[in-house]
Amino acid sequence: MTQGPRDIEDLIDLMARLPGLGPRSARRAVLQLIKKRSLLLIPLADAMQTVAATARECVNCGNVGTSELCEICASEKRATGEICVVEDVADLWAMERAGVFRGRYHVLGGTLSALDAVGPEELRIPRLVARVRDEAITEVILALNATIDGQTTAHYIAEQLEPLGIAVTSLAQGVPIGGELDYLDDGTITAALRARKAL
Amino acid sequence: MTQGPRDIEDLIDLMARLPGLGPRSARRAVLQLIKKRSLLLIPLADAMQTVAATARECVNCGNVGTSELCEICASEKRATGEICVVEDVADLWAMERAGVFRGRYHVLGGTLSALDAVGPEELRIPRLVARVRDEAITEVILALNATIDGQTTAHYIAEQLEPLGIAVTSLAQGVPIGGELDYLDDGTITAALRARKAL
Ligand SMILES: [Zn+2]
Ligand SMILES: [Zn+2]
Repeated sequence: MTQGPRDIEDLIDLMARLPGLGPRSARRAVLQLIKKRSLLLIPLADAMQTVAATARECVNCGNVGTSELCEICASEKRATGEICVVEDVADLWAMERAGVFRGRYHVLGGTLSALDAVGPEELRIPRLVARVRDEAITEVILALNATIDGQTTAHYIAEQLEPLGIAVTSLAQGVPIGGELDYLDDGTITAALRARKAL
Repeated sequence: MTQGPRDIEDLIDLMARLPGLGPRSARRAVLQLIKKRSLLLIPLADAMQTVAATARECVNCGNVGTSELCEICASEKRATGEICVVEDVADLWAMERAGVFRGRYHVLGGTLSALDAVGPEELRIPRLVARVRDEAITEVILALNATIDGQTTAHYIAEQLEPLGIAVTSLAQGVPIGGELDYLDDGTITAALRARKAL
């Protein structure tokens, strides 16, 4: 409850549903938006409508893009024979910021979880197996978070890929126990990729 | 740099300019928006455009509303002869959530600050003096933050109002030193208002 006009309360309620913003910071953000109407509020509303109209999931890898295939899957330069498997798009962006990986990605959209009833199909794992067959892949690099669910998922994927006879590696050195990729600096990610080991 | 498509990078850059969101949380928020396109992204874009079209500053008190006069200034019930002076609209909302003050407000939009060259005109202080003369005001309650700038501003306002012979009080008991109103619970604000003292 903000005690402001209905329109403004509605906007605060929606803003408060964003990760990282509670009710108080949502109120602060909305007041800032109203104060910076032409510099921030209108451009933000426009940018959201543009993204709502254009953003879509890549049918091949699950990355976010603006066409059926994302920029990375559409680029022949990225056809190196390597696929880097990540949990979500934020992790893909973290890998790209590090700038050391030149192949393509596969975005799981989460990890296996008995508790949340997330199975292999929800994580595009059958699609990964199909890609390894179809795209002349020689190595799959598992860049999953160093959490229990992340590592369980990594081992499950390694098992599924074993019959295909390709290298399956995982980021190793540099990823702290319990650490999440999206929090790491570029150097740590680079070191972890260079020191990757066979599973 | 996010390594995502241009439209999405633009949206992240704008989101990162909101208070409380850095680049990392802006990226997380935008991914969440894309994931919840019809439930969150489109409603949020619409709500922002509505607010951009309707929100305006009350000409009398500086509150945010949808007409020339805000709901509080337009309501005869709020003509109690008391004006509560606050630094910003978030503080006004905090007072309203406490539900204990039934008069009207005057929103300064900041505090006096030599460093930032904020003078009395920027803070609507001449307008406050005019309101005390025109609106049959009997008491001005200074509900400013317990910071050095807040208290300097309170004393300056008390001086300006002195010749008018009305009661000038300030929130006292319960506001912690260095504390900001918008962080306080309703009970603390209620106690501070009840125990207000003459300056
Ligand atoms: Zn793709
Ligand atoms: Zn008003």
